[in-house]
Amino acid sequence: MPDLIGRFSNNAGPDRPRFDVIGIGNALVDVIASTDEAFLDSYNLVKGSMTLIETERAVELYAALDSAVEMSGGSAANTACGIASFGGRAAYIGKVNGDDLGDVFGHDMRAVGVTFHRPPGEHGTPTGRCVIVVTPDAERTMNTYLGVSSFLSVDDLDEEAIADSAVLYMEGYLYDRDDAKTAFRRAAQVAHENGRLVSLTLSDSFCVDRHRSDFRALVQDRVDLLFGNHDELLSLYQLDSFDAAVSALRDECDFAAITIGADGCVIVTPDELIRVPAVAVDSVIDTTGAGDLFASGFLFGLTTGKDLETCGHLGSVAAAEVISHVGPRPLVELRNMIGDA
Amino acid sequence: MPDLIGRFSNNAGPDRPRFDVIGIGNALVDVIASTDEAFLDSYNLVKGSMTLIETERAVELYAALDSAVEMSGGSAANTACGIASFGGRAAYIGKVNGDDLGDVFGHDMRAVGVTFHRPPGEHGTPTGRCVIVVTPDAERTMNTYLGVSSFLSVDDLDEEAIADSAVLYMEGYLYDRDDAKTAFRRAAQVAHENGRLVSLTLSDSFCVDRHRSDFRALVQDRVDLLFGNHDELLSLYQLDSFDAAVSALRDECDFAAITIGADGCVIVTPDELIRVPAVAVDSVIDTTGAGDLFASGFLFGLTTGKDLETCGHLGSVAAAEVISHVGPRPLVELRNMIGDA
Repeated sequence: MPDLIGRFSNNAGPDRPRFDVIGIGNALVDVIASTDEAFLDSYNLVKGSMTLIETERAVELYAALDSAVEMSGGSAANTACGIASFGGRAAYIGKVNGDDLGDVFGHDMRAVGVTFHRPPGEHGTPTGRCVIVVTPDAERTMNTYLGVSSFLSVDDLDEEAIADSAVLYMEGYLYDRDDAKTAFRRAAQVAHENGRLVSLTLSDSFCVDRHRSDFRALVQDRVDLLFGNHDELLSLYQLDSFDAAVSALRDECDFAAITIGADGCVIVTPDELIRVPAVAVDSVIDTTGAGDLFASGFLFGLTTGKDLETCGHLGSVAAAEVISHVGPRPLVELRNMIGDA
Repeated sequence: MPDLIGRFSNNAGPDRPRFDVIGIGNALVDVIASTDEAFLDSYNLVKGSMTLIETERAVELYAALDSAVEMSGGSAANTACGIASFGGRAAYIGKVNGDDLGDVFGHDMRAVGVTFHRPPGEHGTPTGRCVIVVTPDAERTMNTYLGVSSFLSVDDLDEEAIADSAVLYMEGYLYDRDDAKTAFRRAAQVAHENGRLVSLTLSDSFCVDRHRSDFRALVQDRVDLLFGNHDELLSLYQLDSFDAAVSALRDECDFAAITIGADGCVIVTPDELIRVPAVAVDSVIDTTGAGDLFASGFLFGLTTGKDLETCGHLGSVAAAEVISHVGPRPLVELRNMIGDA
């Protein structure tokens, strides 16, 4: 823990970097509709998962869906917006196109005060979208047409912004094509060369499953702080026991914040396990964005010098807000939801 | 009243037309964001009104807005969706482009079971959008970039569908360009030639103000059933007294349903004035779509043989649902909100 805090000794005073956090991820607009459970069966959807889909499947699913609402999404983008909503200084790198959805995405980032580093140049592929079906139990099942977002490469990195951000936050979902993998390693290198902290979220257990060895290598070599949930951690180490997975993690990465749904989170450090309870929610409406906003609160806490337990609590506050309504981003200013924490 | 009901004697049995209602209007996607009152002042917006804006102003307003949600809208389109939500058979004619927002609009119509007659052919102008700012008092202030929607002309009418619909419902908002005015008169002619009922909504008092003489001529010549609210009716006849405006209306149009906000509505017939109270709402969140959905309920009642008081009540039920949440269309099946009414 002293090491982790030590890395942030430069996040105040005259040498304070320009951004608290810079996120890199798939820039997506969410297309959200409510469905019944039968819809999942009819279309062979695995509840709670994220599945990558191609154009044809996207068209099929969308056509079958009831009226939808379009809201900007994307995991690391949601996290960046949450940080801004707390009052933090967030930046984001992700690829959109010059179409309507690209405009919507860019607008919604700027509107909440996130500095959006949109890689220049046009690309024939449309802006990505995530078709999210929300079942009556508030679970979200995501079907992602990545579009142009997945073509992020080293050339799209704004290295100056990465160098000038206290934390680099990378989204596992993007860790799919070789170009993106290379970009992640380069981004981490730039961050480390400038004494910044490198964090990664595992994003999804299927995603971990597809790229387990690459993820583990990245975690071992480059990641200072790992985010993930219970299932993703088990998947990373192919273990059935949470305790065993935490042990395995400790051999490879010093710090982690692992969410366990309604049971809150466990913060892993070299010396201790800190359990932080979830913040209660009257009525869970849509779990989309829960993990993303947990990371917002945690990183906002970390970059403002809070202790790790408080970081976990801030994560839970933000997650509680976002699951209490439809949509993956806060509807209120998170800065108004915290006292002097 | 016997005349009005008489027109619907053909809305049952083997000669029942294919659609209960066909709407014609500006096909728009709503871009909805919350603002404070100061935002209205800063941008010289008149609360509760609908203002037509050009590209430059649309860009300016959108850039100034907080994160937004995109949902299909358009006044007569919302009405058609409400009718479908009650279980009625609705069709719609309106112009969109082949861009993302056009796809969204088409999807959301089909998803609720509205037959969308999209005029063929591409047009260089984008799909229209309505930038709606919702203030803390739940009032909506609309800024409409019409885009391709306003280019509706006689060529875009699906006359076969109009002939085969019990009611033609036209949206005053569209009654702006000469091509659209001509299209309205032609649509009304086709409806009348086939023994159908022609209805019009006044849409907005500024809209009435811009085109008062044309509106009055249309009402006199072609309209069997007029929809509007209190302010629009006063604007139509340039009178300060509601009673005087109702008298003036009776000289020109036999039937009307005029909403008066929380006071419900007044149904005007040659012989009587029927007052129907509003349905109470716990918390009014966003008044967008209130008038549109009132028309849904009223027309659903009319085309299923209900008495006029019940028609007014069904209108109030639908309006109450739509003002209890963000967005201009019902979030629940309206058919489940009514008993044996």
